[in-house]
Amino acid sequence: MKIIVVGANGTLGKAICDELSPKHEIISAGRSAGDVTVDITSPQSIRAMYEQTGRVDAVICAAGDAYFGRLEELTPERNEIAILSKLKGQINLVLLGQDYVNDRGSFTLTTGIIMDDPIVGGVSSAMAGGAVRAFVQAAAIELPRGIRINNVSPNVLEESMDSYGPFFPGFEPVPAARAAKAYRKSVEGAQTGQTYRVY
Amino acid sequence: MKIIVVGANGTLGKAICDELSPKHEIISAGRSAGDVTVDITSPQSIRAMYEQTGRVDAVICAAGDAYFGRLEELTPERNEIAILSKLKGQINLVLLGQDYVNDRGSFTLTTGIIMDDPIVGGVSSAMAGGAVRAFVQAAAIELPRGIRINNVSPNVLEESMDSYGPFFPGFEPVPAARAAKAYRKSVEGAQTGQTYRVY
Repeated sequence: MKIIVVGANGTLGKAICDELSPKHEIISAGRSAGDVTVDITSPQSIRAMYEQTGRVDAVICAAGDAYFGRLEELTPERNEIAILSKLKGQINLVLLGQDYVNDRGSFTLTTGIIMDDPIVGGVSSAMAGGAVRAFVQAAAIELPRGIRINNVSPNVLEESMDSYGPFFPGFEPVPAARAAKAYRKSVEGAQTGQTYRVY
Repeated sequence: MKIIVVGANGTLGKAICDELSPKHEIISAGRSAGDVTVDITSPQSIRAMYEQTGRVDAVICAAGDAYFGRLEELTPERNEIAILSKLKGQINLVLLGQDYVNDRGSFTLTTGIIMDDPIVGGVSSAMAGGAVRAFVQAAAIELPRGIRINNVSPNVLEESMDSYGPFFPGFEPVPAARAAKAYRKSVEGAQTGQTYRVY
């Protein structure tokens, strides 16, 4: 299969590429590097990416920023980071990509454990994850031509514990390689509307 | 208690006011009518509302627009209606209202059954509901001074079946008065972070 991986250069994205590249043709996409570049906060940039790649069998998004910080410091402006990126960025990859995915192809988006198991400082990211999860479940019953859609909700990654660890006291980090398997399940399996939790 | 009800003139808002007015002082708020007017899509308008009301014991939001229509016609622009109103509008009422709610007061937002039980045409509203539910669960562990936050997720309302009925085949509509009880549970109870489903 021909698979776009948005955020291919990130910790999770690299693991997804490692998991999928033996059997599939990966088109890596990122803000500044990759086979194609894309800024998911811009619908125009997403459109340009799809025009460049043409039809594919799967689109995976492992990108999405969010402000981390205490609720009392979460202004509407800071909340906008997650809305533009993790929320609308991922959702617009689907809305604008429907016509570029082959019959029985798939979209796989990324949410995260915080939407189920909240942490101090994670409100904005949890909100975006909850939006994406509900979008996925609802879009699954409407996508045409057997196109499927799922989301993967990873726990904090072992590889990210240096930077994110203090936000996740008592959480059991998972290796990115383990989270990557859920993306493969979404791409090569036949389920739709699912949230694959890797906790 | 002194309670702001945003969307007090809507079908659900009126039922909430009927349920709460015997025991509480209601400040009705709406886009064009009410004790105060507010456009929840504008942070400035929300700030102005709170400056006018001053401190209150509870804030209820029973307002929030969303585009209803098939996924293939859901453009990023049409999706923006729900993001601005049902999603950011409700969330900004909390972010900008934290300092205006008295100790042990509460916020109660509105989601909807579609986020659990999707319908054709409801993707955008489901997305916004999922965002609000996750926001509520995460914000609950951080709100200061014992302030609580919940969301009520009503089924389609009996009173709205003329306009929304065709979108909800086989759903069992609930009377607005029944949904209104869940808002009272949120305001007068002691739980936080909850989703009260009225299905």
